[in-house]
Amino acid sequence: MPHKFISSTQNSFIKQLVQLKDKSRERKTSGLFLIEGQRELSLAIKGGFVIETLLFFSELISEAQLNSFSMHCENVVEISKDVFQKLAHRSTTEGIIAIVKNKSHDLEQLTFKNKSPLILVAEAPEKPGNIGALLRTADAANVDAVIIANPKTDLYNPNIIRSSVGCVFTNQIATGTSSEIIDFLKTQQVNIYCAALQASTSYFNQDFVKASAIVVGTEADGLSEEWLEASTQNIIIPMQGEIDSMNVSVAAGILIFEAVRQRRLN
Amino acid sequence: MPHKFISSTQNSFIKQLVQLKDKSRERKTSGLFLIEGQRELSLAIKGGFVIETLLFFSELISEAQLNSFSMHCENVVEISKDVFQKLAHRSTTEGIIAIVKNKSHDLEQLTFKNKSPLILVAEAPEKPGNIGALLRTADAANVDAVIIANPKTDLYNPNIIRSSVGCVFTNQIATGTSSEIIDFLKTQQVNIYCAALQASTSYFNQDFVKASAIVVGTEADGLSEEWLEASTQNIIIPMQGEIDSMNVSVAAGILIFEAVRQRRLN
Repeated sequence: MPHKFISSTQNSFIKQLVQLKDKSRERKTSGLFLIEGQRELSLAIKGGFVIETLLFFSELISEAQLNSFSMHCENVVEISKDVFQKLAHRSTTEGIIAIVKNKSHDLEQLTFKNKSPLILVAEAPEKPGNIGALLRTADAANVDAVIIANPKTDLYNPNIIRSSVGCVFTNQIATGTSSEIIDFLKTQQVNIYCAALQASTSYFNQDFVKASAIVVGTEADGLSEEWLEASTQNIIIPMQGEIDSMNVSVAAGILIFEAVRQRRLN
Repeated sequence: MPHKFISSTQNSFIKQLVQLKDKSRERKTSGLFLIEGQRELSLAIKGGFVIETLLFFSELISEAQLNSFSMHCENVVEISKDVFQKLAHRSTTEGIIAIVKNKSHDLEQLTFKNKSPLILVAEAPEKPGNIGALLRTADAANVDAVIIANPKTDLYNPNIIRSSVGCVFTNQIATGTSSEIIDFLKTQQVNIYCAALQASTSYFNQDFVKASAIVVGTEADGLSEEWLEASTQNIIIPMQGEIDSMNVSVAAGILIFEAVRQRRLN
């Protein structure tokens, strides 16, 4: 297959891609983002993402591997080692970078595979590593949706893609303001269980077999007043140590898998 | 209180402390490590650690605050802003750095507050952030001990202290080779539950009210053969997603808090 070759890191197209990698604003205005690595790209294709352009560095990818991707995208560009290193986040990834169209994350587009859906909501999570871990847990628990309230970063931040090991492509994800999400959950008759210290019941005494949204806030500030007011019931993980501070993705994992446990035993 | 003042980052004592901060080997040979921040230092004092020297930067700490620490250590040194910045990991910490004696982490010194202890074992955990999250979970669950098998890093790595938010000082922690730990657990008649894919039962079908060690491996390699052979019963978190990969500290949190749940309901 004939294709363009770009060798210079000074090429204006490549410079645009560096922006796409580094700048959230650039991703937002263009509606595009970069995916690096064969595993991540395969998951995105499986998740229905549309590839706009494939860039490959021939020393790190076989023709067969490249073909398995180029069947999903006709626009293929070969790049030099210099360009690959400029664009790649990880030096070890397997010679492929894709320019991909982002998806809409409107609440209205959510569909539930389950009559009584299980939803994980995170309000304003900050660290890409924590968001990645939340998405991994959500995938493993096969929740119906992950909803991010008042997101502080776009989902296609390279650190989120990487720390989620691609789960950002396998989960059904929506974003919105806290008000929009609360309205949505109430309209859908989903019970809202806020992880909070105040007026809480132990999480293992709560029935999560019904339609349930488990809502977690940040480690520093917890959940906003808005969520606490909308809460069907606040839940707490009873702690009994000296410090009693848990990583937010660990806490979310404990709550979500208690719901999974109850649903399996049901 | 009269005390020494060190203003130069070229001072040989300060250079030694930089080594202590940066080099695991230096911490091991000297038996000393650095603690930064008032909160962390308070927890270490509470945990029975012995302070050898206190260093303070007067602009960031009040005399009353300093006195609350100097009652635990007579050897107090004032340092300049330059020296403080050279030694501090975080620019925001509160003007205090301590040189502290490490503790022995021999298995034989473990004492259990509980007839049927609950123990978290991690084999060869690598990332300081994961170790910190494990220690936070262990503190919150008030486990009897955390045991680290074949540790890849020393416990007093500044990134572990920081990511554990001081839980490295509140938990009872032992280290050893996998063989030593297995012998110890068997002698103590503690059941060994290995998180593993092979021949496993769902974790929520296992009784953790008995004396239990929950053993987790690394995300990449899982547990070694040695642990699997010594296992009373392998346990698994049933996953049902596309990727089914969970952060090790999230998985450990789910398992440990299932044990806590069972023990509370018992």
